[in-house]
Amino acid sequence: MRIALDAMGTDHAPSAEVAGAIGALQALDSDIEVVLVGDQSTIDAELARHTGVPPGRLAVRHAADRVTAADPPASVIRRKPESSIVVGLKMVKAGEADAFVSAGSTGAVMATSLFTLRPLPGVARPAIGTLLPTALSPCLMLDAGANVDCKPQHLVQFAHLGHIYAQDLMGIPDPRVALLNIGEEPEKGDELTLEAHRLLDASPGLNFVGNVEGRDIIQGVCDVVVCDGFVGNVLLKFYESVAEFTIGLLRKSLRESDEHLNLEEVFRILDYAEYGGAPLLGVGGVSIICHGESSARAIRNALGVAARAVRSDMVSHIAREVSAPAKSEESA
Amino acid sequence: MRIALDAMGTDHAPSAEVAGAIGALQALDSDIEVVLVGDQSTIDAELARHTGVPPGRLAVRHAADRVTAADPPASVIRRKPESSIVVGLKMVKAGEADAFVSAGSTGAVMATSLFTLRPLPGVARPAIGTLLPTALSPCLMLDAGANVDCKPQHLVQFAHLGHIYAQDLMGIPDPRVALLNIGEEPEKGDELTLEAHRLLDASPGLNFVGNVEGRDIIQGVCDVVVCDGFVGNVLLKFYESVAEFTIGLLRKSLRESDEHLNLEEVFRILDYAEYGGAPLLGVGGVSIICHGESSARAIRNALGVAARAVRSDMVSHIAREVSAPAKSEESA
Repeated sequence: MRIALDAMGTDHAPSAEVAGAIGALQALDSDIEVVLVGDQSTIDAELARHTGVPPGRLAVRHAADRVTAADPPASVIRRKPESSIVVGLKMVKAGEADAFVSAGSTGAVMATSLFTLRPLPGVARPAIGTLLPTALSPCLMLDAGANVDCKPQHLVQFAHLGHIYAQDLMGIPDPRVALLNIGEEPEKGDELTLEAHRLLDASPGLNFVGNVEGRDIIQGVCDVVVCDGFVGNVLLKFYESVAEFTIGLLRKSLRESDEHLNLEEVFRILDYAEYGGAPLLGVGGVSIICHGESSARAIRNALGVAARAVRSDMVSHIAREVSAPAKSEESA
Repeated sequence: MRIALDAMGTDHAPSAEVAGAIGALQALDSDIEVVLVGDQSTIDAELARHTGVPPGRLAVRHAADRVTAADPPASVIRRKPESSIVVGLKMVKAGEADAFVSAGSTGAVMATSLFTLRPLPGVARPAIGTLLPTALSPCLMLDAGANVDCKPQHLVQFAHLGHIYAQDLMGIPDPRVALLNIGEEPEKGDELTLEAHRLLDASPGLNFVGNVEGRDIIQGVCDVVVCDGFVGNVLLKFYESVAEFTIGLLRKSLRESDEHLNLEEVFRILDYAEYGGAPLLGVGGVSIICHGESSARAIRNALGVAARAVRSDMVSHIAREVSAPAKSEESA
């Protein structure tokens, strides 16, 4: 298995990428290779600073250009064909890599993934799935920002995408799927969620557990929660900031109190780096989007997620089980 | 000034209400009176357990009935006319009280406030404002759940309501008003926020600072943030739960580590009880909604908020400044 890793994605590329790739290769099965995609000389210089690179498992694919936050996402494929994002995704398209991982501009990775890997037949709106830490096991939320102004049937499709992700990557045989709403009762919600609830309730093959509220997610009451990408994006960014804020308050108190306390467990649970990247679900290949501030550990974990997605043949699973029923619901 | 307090609202009524009322009377100006609205004998029994009740400033108004979570909010005014919520709000309507505070069913307090106090002329959608803790001063978010499927002009009206609340109750002369969105640039967003941004930018009398994302709120970049009530409600409940969750993780670590650390400051910042209740803005009277799990301290603080709203003549301020421009925007 070969995973293409955008080496120019994070704010401090390529150091986090190179260290993350080496860490992943040491942790993952020996048949897994990583290809660092980006400026050859920059990557070579960074690689020279490391020892312990597993021989024959780490390669470099030169990409002369780099996407920045200023590039309009939809124009990247046309205007920056030599960028690491376009080169890496084209490797997946051409079968030269089995998955792509990037911490570059979320919009650019998403748009370029849609252009190159294409939505699977019958998938109206590929969605970004992201894992939220909870009191029990993490909960997959989708859509985390790929789509706004969703229709009820899009949320149903997200539920099916999430169902398969939870089965294949989280190892949950019959994942509990919930609808994010402002009340538990089926008659609560806005126009979108009222109708989505009705459709989800009638959708075969889903363990739909009904509505959950903002406060329920963190209790671990569901494995998958679906929502419009506007709500999901606001919530995700808010969660990250609240966790950071709380930890910041804590660290300050700890410094002031002059105590030395082991709060690693708290920090670990709330640390996004633990959870790897966010997959774009519903396209014809594995594409994993990481936070722009990803650490080497976050990159390593995202490579692990990519490897599990390839190993479980998630894309075929989605093509087989989601595309067909989703198509019929879409036309209904 | 006389504030009617629903004595039957919290999960453990009337003990939090009675203790909160006594605490408020001790802290607030001596011309402020509180009327406990609810079952006379239950309240009397609770009052008998307290000393230090300021003479002549605490009265009881008997209300034989009580609203429960099972009562459909819109039916309360008709089916439970003797409930503490209906009796208390009718006191405000009749001029027997200057404000109403309740920790009862949010939906019931909101619906009954709309029925009895009525929206102010030109206010299309009264909104619930709620204070979110941030790294700097708290930020007022509205709407926190009174309205779903908002139109862009409703968000503009929320901005004006929040502007006045921030001036009158938070003491901010020129509050920074922001639009909750999924990107900072004006061209980011869904249909609602794209158009709302345009209208807010053109709305006179507002210090509109543009879009903020979920992660910005907690940095304290704005004093008021407007959003659809669906998004606001999800976010609010999520925030409460994340803060609780983090504090829970922390308390557990502290217990296990056998250390004694003073983290009161952290807990205080993240403790909702600090911030009092959430006002329903845009109706013809002061109506403050508290969390169903409010402590005596939360009730005391909500009574303080009610007193400040009355003292600043907030309702007249809204009637004067919001109703007219909002009306013209509404018809535009």
